[in-house]
Amino acid sequence: MATVDSLQSPRFCGIRTFMRQPWHNDAGDADAVVLGVPFDSGVSYRPGARFGPTALREASTILKPYCPVLDVDINQWLNVTDCGDIDTIPGYMAESLDKIRDGLIPFFKSRAVPVVLGGDHSISLGVLRAVKAARGPVALVHFDAHSDTIPGYYGKPYNHGTPFYHALKEGLILPQHSIQIGIRGPLYSRDALAWPKEQGLRIVMGEELHRRGLEAVAAEALERTAHCPVFVSFDIDFLDASCAPGTGTPEVEGFNTYEGLTLLRTICRETRTVGMDLVEVLPDKDPSGITALAGASMVHAFLAALALKKSAGRSAA
Amino acid sequence: MATVDSLQSPRFCGIRTFMRQPWHNDAGDADAVVLGVPFDSGVSYRPGARFGPTALREASTILKPYCPVLDVDINQWLNVTDCGDIDTIPGYMAESLDKIRDGLIPFFKSRAVPVVLGGDHSISLGVLRAVKAARGPVALVHFDAHSDTIPGYYGKPYNHGTPFYHALKEGLILPQHSIQIGIRGPLYSRDALAWPKEQGLRIVMGEELHRRGLEAVAAEALERTAHCPVFVSFDIDFLDASCAPGTGTPEVEGFNTYEGLTLLRTICRETRTVGMDLVEVLPDKDPSGITALAGASMVHAFLAALALKKSAGRSAA
Amino acid sequence: MATVDSLQSPRFCGIRTFMRQPWHNDAGDADAVVLGVPFDSGVSYRPGARFGPTALREASTILKPYCPVLDVDINQWLNVTDCGDIDTIPGYMAESLDKIRDGLIPFFKSRAVPVVLGGDHSISLGVLRAVKAARGPVALVHFDAHSDTIPGYYGKPYNHGTPFYHALKEGLILPQHSIQIGIRGPLYSRDALAWPKEQGLRIVMGEELHRRGLEAVAAEALERTAHCPVFVSFDIDFLDASCAPGTGTPEVEGFNTYEGLTLLRTICRETRTVGMDLVEVLPDKDPSGITALAGASMVHAFLAALALKKSAGRSAA
Amino acid sequence: MATVDSLQSPRFCGIRTFMRQPWHNDAGDADAVVLGVPFDSGVSYRPGARFGPTALREASTILKPYCPVLDVDINQWLNVTDCGDIDTIPGYMAESLDKIRDGLIPFFKSRAVPVVLGGDHSISLGVLRAVKAARGPVALVHFDAHSDTIPGYYGKPYNHGTPFYHALKEGLILPQHSIQIGIRGPLYSRDALAWPKEQGLRIVMGEELHRRGLEAVAAEALERTAHCPVFVSFDIDFLDASCAPGTGTPEVEGFNTYEGLTLLRTICRETRTVGMDLVEVLPDKDPSGITALAGASMVHAFLAALALKKSAGRSAA
Amino acid sequence: MATVDSLQSPRFCGIRTFMRQPWHNDAGDADAVVLGVPFDSGVSYRPGARFGPTALREASTILKPYCPVLDVDINQWLNVTDCGDIDTIPGYMAESLDKIRDGLIPFFKSRAVPVVLGGDHSISLGVLRAVKAARGPVALVHFDAHSDTIPGYYGKPYNHGTPFYHALKEGLILPQHSIQIGIRGPLYSRDALAWPKEQGLRIVMGEELHRRGLEAVAAEALERTAHCPVFVSFDIDFLDASCAPGTGTPEVEGFNTYEGLTLLRTICRETRTVGMDLVEVLPDKDPSGITALAGASMVHAFLAALALKKSAGRSAA
Amino acid sequence: MATVDSLQSPRFCGIRTFMRQPWHNDAGDADAVVLGVPFDSGVSYRPGARFGPTALREASTILKPYCPVLDVDINQWLNVTDCGDIDTIPGYMAESLDKIRDGLIPFFKSRAVPVVLGGDHSISLGVLRAVKAARGPVALVHFDAHSDTIPGYYGKPYNHGTPFYHALKEGLILPQHSIQIGIRGPLYSRDALAWPKEQGLRIVMGEELHRRGLEAVAAEALERTAHCPVFVSFDIDFLDASCAPGTGTPEVEGFNTYEGLTLLRTICRETRTVGMDLVEVLPDKDPSGITALAGASMVHAFLAALALKKSAGRSAA
Repeated sequence: MATVDSLQSPRFCGIRTFMRQPWHNDAGDADAVVLGVPFDSGVSYRPGARFGPTALREASTILKPYCPVLDVDINQWLNVTDCGDIDTIPGYMAESLDKIRDGLIPFFKSRAVPVVLGGDHSISLGVLRAVKAARGPVALVHFDAHSDTIPGYYGKPYNHGTPFYHALKEGLILPQHSIQIGIRGPLYSRDALAWPKEQGLRIVMGEELHRRGLEAVAAEALERTAHCPVFVSFDIDFLDASCAPGTGTPEVEGFNTYEGLTLLRTICRETRTVGMDLVEVLPDKDPSGITALAGASMVHAFLAALALKKSAGRSAA
Repeated sequence: MATVDSLQSPRFCGIRTFMRQPWHNDAGDADAVVLGVPFDSGVSYRPGARFGPTALREASTILKPYCPVLDVDINQWLNVTDCGDIDTIPGYMAESLDKIRDGLIPFFKSRAVPVVLGGDHSISLGVLRAVKAARGPVALVHFDAHSDTIPGYYGKPYNHGTPFYHALKEGLILPQHSIQIGIRGPLYSRDALAWPKEQGLRIVMGEELHRRGLEAVAAEALERTAHCPVFVSFDIDFLDASCAPGTGTPEVEGFNTYEGLTLLRTICRETRTVGMDLVEVLPDKDPSGITALAGASMVHAFLAALALKKSAGRSAA
Repeated sequence: MATVDSLQSPRFCGIRTFMRQPWHNDAGDADAVVLGVPFDSGVSYRPGARFGPTALREASTILKPYCPVLDVDINQWLNVTDCGDIDTIPGYMAESLDKIRDGLIPFFKSRAVPVVLGGDHSISLGVLRAVKAARGPVALVHFDAHSDTIPGYYGKPYNHGTPFYHALKEGLILPQHSIQIGIRGPLYSRDALAWPKEQGLRIVMGEELHRRGLEAVAAEALERTAHCPVFVSFDIDFLDASCAPGTGTPEVEGFNTYEGLTLLRTICRETRTVGMDLVEVLPDKDPSGITALAGASMVHAFLAALALKKSAGRSAA
Repeated sequence: MATVDSLQSPRFCGIRTFMRQPWHNDAGDADAVVLGVPFDSGVSYRPGARFGPTALREASTILKPYCPVLDVDINQWLNVTDCGDIDTIPGYMAESLDKIRDGLIPFFKSRAVPVVLGGDHSISLGVLRAVKAARGPVALVHFDAHSDTIPGYYGKPYNHGTPFYHALKEGLILPQHSIQIGIRGPLYSRDALAWPKEQGLRIVMGEELHRRGLEAVAAEALERTAHCPVFVSFDIDFLDASCAPGTGTPEVEGFNTYEGLTLLRTICRETRTVGMDLVEVLPDKDPSGITALAGASMVHAFLAALALKKSAGRSAA
Repeated sequence: MATVDSLQSPRFCGIRTFMRQPWHNDAGDADAVVLGVPFDSGVSYRPGARFGPTALREASTILKPYCPVLDVDINQWLNVTDCGDIDTIPGYMAESLDKIRDGLIPFFKSRAVPVVLGGDHSISLGVLRAVKAARGPVALVHFDAHSDTIPGYYGKPYNHGTPFYHALKEGLILPQHSIQIGIRGPLYSRDALAWPKEQGLRIVMGEELHRRGLEAVAAEALERTAHCPVFVSFDIDFLDASCAPGTGTPEVEGFNTYEGLTLLRTICRETRTVGMDLVEVLPDKDPSGITALAGASMVHAFLAALALKKSAGRSAA
Repeated sequence: MATVDSLQSPRFCGIRTFMRQPWHNDAGDADAVVLGVPFDSGVSYRPGARFGPTALREASTILKPYCPVLDVDINQWLNVTDCGDIDTIPGYMAESLDKIRDGLIPFFKSRAVPVVLGGDHSISLGVLRAVKAARGPVALVHFDAHSDTIPGYYGKPYNHGTPFYHALKEGLILPQHSIQIGIRGPLYSRDALAWPKEQGLRIVMGEELHRRGLEAVAAEALERTAHCPVFVSFDIDFLDASCAPGTGTPEVEGFNTYEGLTLLRTICRETRTVGMDLVEVLPDKDPSGITALAGASMVHAFLAALALKKSAGRSAA
């Protein structure tokens, strides 16, 4: 199966794979692979992100290969494969994290750059454990409304509010080279972000991003991550609730898609990205599909940056 | 707080409690208590039943106290209290089942008859463990499209397809006196129902119910459960998908609300019911609220039967 | 403007009038007129039926003129006109009832048979006042889940639960010749229906209709209304919640559209109908439009019966 | 790729193919193939059925392989393959019909029995042309609310209201052995069905089916189709609007899924079925997915009947 | 009952009160009380805001107590109580305004600062009458797309377009110290705003706010309201239709939540606020809940500003 | 029939015409006419824009006649008539384009300025052919996310991605005086826009508009179109997906309604506009109606600019 040409075959035709790319069970010689992790047992409010991968694939069918902002054609430079989904176990957090890690390790060990479609944000712990196993610790560039660095909920360690606490504890990410962008909304307490900051993590609050602007924050992110392998974790609620209504814990005072894409492109085109995840798309609260479209567009931008780097002779990772 | 009079206070006013009854944290001297168990980590397909209790409370605000079919006024004979929700832990099945059991035991030990609002059907295992602890094993009258007697899913024991396997294994129910009604739809294999039948469980397939009719099946249920304490478990997908679209695994070829209510009333008015659960209402797929209304109506019918028995001087349980 | 031919002009084209009939401000020489009364300040739970007329007009565009069950072509025998809407005043019950009555009197005095599209059921009081003023008291054939004969709500007389109390009090309907069909669901008390029954009103409960069947009840309705001018009031919640989810106070245990249409046709083809109203369609809770379609189909059946009587040389009223 | 085991891999995981069967571009050695024809340019009212195949595949993921009513396991007896979609050209009716015919001929010439997922009903003309080319004319068993035998709309021949007019004209079906079941709702005129009846087509009106019952009509269908190759065309609006709200021209007074499935199973298990189409599922008006579920269940029943015949040593076609 | 800790009890558990605060019928020793006024008989277009309080309570369950922008913890400084809803009478405007005023006076006379959840904007007249009775006239800070200063509609005085006309006429607000912010969209005529301006009311049109920016307008508001008791009336349609789709008369060209919250915080932290209302949230047009979330966030910001003032030793009112 | 006064007749009353203006079949002495072209067979992804005219008429009922930004009252200066819809033929592209052209020519030849409500963007070819026939070639001001200058799709010429290719080829527009604004999102290839640029068309990419700002681009548009008759084609997906979710191929990184309206007003008040179309509103994906409201507001702004020019003694065209 080859990539489908949407000037010959209408976009609404065919089995849904990401951007109508071919479906294979393994990475083969792909430059990038897209994988779903349909898991949402980690949410503290609304479930349903297990249908995120399906919604993202559907939305991606209207995305064409050439990115005019980066002036690069994804299909010209990258061999992209959709490798289906990792099986998880609803209701079993720890076991699912193991399955995610084990299922992803081969992809992170391959020559391809994996893009993981969530799922709620709890999956990122499994993803980062796989990254660590395959590539060692990474610099994290984390777009989100929430820091997700709480030690535990309801007396238990794993939840979509805790992945980066454990990632820090387990040494999966390099705090001095990592950055969270867009954190906003009410917190449990004044001290809620004290611990991750003590570990060295840089947290750019939403208010600060609104105030300082895209360029300044992008520059800081590039400086922090310089020379490191970078993993990008993009929680769709980084975007404002008006741009991403279909998510489990939407937040107001957020960012629009122009801001999100501009930041993402600026950072990714200049860093050594080893992978990405795009999480918390919840189709049941996305009646028009704009959240899934925004999410798929973020993945498209990531792939376009990858293509750009390859076209420039730079290794993708 | 007293029951609200909807001829004085419009139904759309006020904090939502079941049938606008008072809210207390314990059973007190109530004859019946309504409790939510907002848990849906056990679903094999669509999650969201954690919002079932909220939807059922909202739908119940339009239910008046007098049932013309049974000719009885619930508020005249029963002191009904809404005792809020049992806290659960999303993503942690076994621990949540413990919390459900422990949280419910005091209510099943009280003089009140508890009605539990789910939540997905996995919660019934916790509920029945509480019933067993407080009252001993019971006859089960189980309305459902699915038998839910599979030993496990994905290598794990707990899931909304397995509660009655464990209930049988743990001796929570009396198989010779228990009955499942309305089971239908495709199965995993021809032998899928062999084991529960071997234990003595009576399974009335949907096809059989369509063929034999309400009276015959109700009579059989009454005969089987005679002289036993009875627990009623009502999965809303017993109803046809047209009557209960808002559920996780809807099934076609089902039953309408007249059939469901007639069966439920006929059985409950003549049996010694020690409790009920009403599960699998999924508001996100219930845009008009008719599924929640059907569910709340089932609870209303159960309470009306309880009131009728009390009015007749018979002990409720 | 003439009736639009849907074999030439697609149904989705054009300004929306009922069944694509011409729009005039007065009855002219029409045999039947359709009028909207977009008012919903009388509801005790969900508002929104003010958009009923718009939804019914939209749904009616797919209705063709020939009724195979009655074997009659509406357009062949009837000149049908859409006369737009009566202006009402949201938030002002008594004044709106006056406007409804005054606005409708000329139509009930014309040679046309009016069909009124609600709006909530409180409008029927204004409608029946107009009928009384123009034609004297009438026999009422009332399809509904609710009797709507409560004296008042919240200390006030007018509400969608009270129109037939006032209609009886004001002598607008002939109780000995009137019948309510399909009343069901919980009531405020055992005595809730005592007063209307004392006035001579026949109330066929839903349970009774389920038990006795369509033929017996239709026969009884024909007997009661014989030789009287008949007004038909059809509350869409007569239908089961699965067939009419889009309504303010849906009820389970109801009737399907085959049952509703069969009853309506059987009664209307044999009685001297002076008008009809079709109320309580609430588009916001009708995402697929099936409630509006059911409502428009009831109006279609009423018109077809009118055409049949005209074709048989019987006066429509 | 093999059929996925849903006791190991949750149903919400994976690229969506019909019943989680393997995806291949050609029939290979399959016993049955499922193909989508996402085309809806033929509709006279609401478009959107082009997303029918996607919705049917999604709904089919919850269908298990064993049918308890027919007592047969689909996967045990049939090798079922999902062969993706036929490309069509929106806005170009005649050309699309050619592409449908040409695309399907190889499948109808293969040893597999094709099941086609629409799309609107105009596609059936292309499908039947392929059947004719591969297998000769067939007996048609047609479930629908509409006869679809109008010569043309808006001065043009092709539309979802005309396929069987052309099928009759082109000799694709054997009118003396064909039957339409469930036709109902208003018609354009008294003579609307005269021509197809003159050709010998048997039309069982909805009213007649309600009156005579399932058994009588099934028996008549079996008698008419005896000894002929049979093609089943199932328009989802055969079902009542409450059971299939998600369709372009829903009709009230229809049939429930128990009635539809019973008829379909009774007929298919006894006839030599060479193929089936399932059309007019419109996801945008199907917020709970029950229409798609009903449609997928019809396909499941067709496949189960096929398996049953194979298990009995009878050739499927 | 105490405030619920969402790190122990999941947010989707429990009877819905605002921000999971305790429910009492009176103010007791609360610092702030939240009350619903579920009334929408005053709307000129879409009704449904009577379900606003329910939707706001649901949305508020995801709001945590600490506001990082104002650096203050609501629960640390304020005792907040949910006091349920004021009963109103649908269809009876004048009587409902009386019930609102009478119901609220005790709360405005208590030591608590009331926050009123609407309901349509007509309720603000009842609210301001209560404020006047308890506290005397106030400076109004009014966020809205519409001035709501029309004398009457349809020949009647009360409607959601008229509250501030009457408030000015009745001396409830101090026009020289009051300000309307964000007024935009088409008007009935060029003179539509002449009268309120003549009374001294300052009206900042949306266009002006877009042009001059948040700081300038906030400064002007602070200057006008200096030394006065301030009542904040926030109509959710101040926000752009993309941020607040769920409202009765949405307007384009509006403001996002960052702009709304920044203005609100800047003004409230520096003024002596005696109360707030948040009106026109219409859940039926808010499928993703983002409008209710925006509304609840505005209330959160108001409470946070109150907490900040208390923490600084300044009296809240 | 005269324009309806919404201070006397509530906006939710009456047959829906644009802005409650009178309905006539021809232009008569109108200054502006509004016409629907409900056609969507040209879409490459989601159909449904055939219901755009109905949705735009509904949304327009809340628009009042005075525009405060332009300080002009539409009803004071313009006689606006709603002339209903042009009949089209679903599934027949070329024939429909003929019907659109032929149906519109009389209106473009009248003294009125036509505003056409789509429908998908393929209709603009028919519209521009009518403009050419009646008025000669025009300068095009085209707001869109997509250039729509592809020669053909799926081997066929007509589609909503091709109208301006043909318009250029057929000499319907003056490329040197035309401008496309807001083009963004992925393209088929780097060369996708080369041909239209070679023809002289100015394409302002979305990125450029974000960067240079409204004033600069408006100035450029005015300069290019100076002294030419101007046709405005506004595809609602010019707006960001958050502001216009209800469209067939939404795009992120777009513009809000303030930006869209400001550009539109600035350009239209200074140019000789001979007509406008507003296309691609898709109600099925617009659950809150904000897309239709945005579209109707664009038409309102166009009409207000027309009124302003007339008030200033300048001919509208």
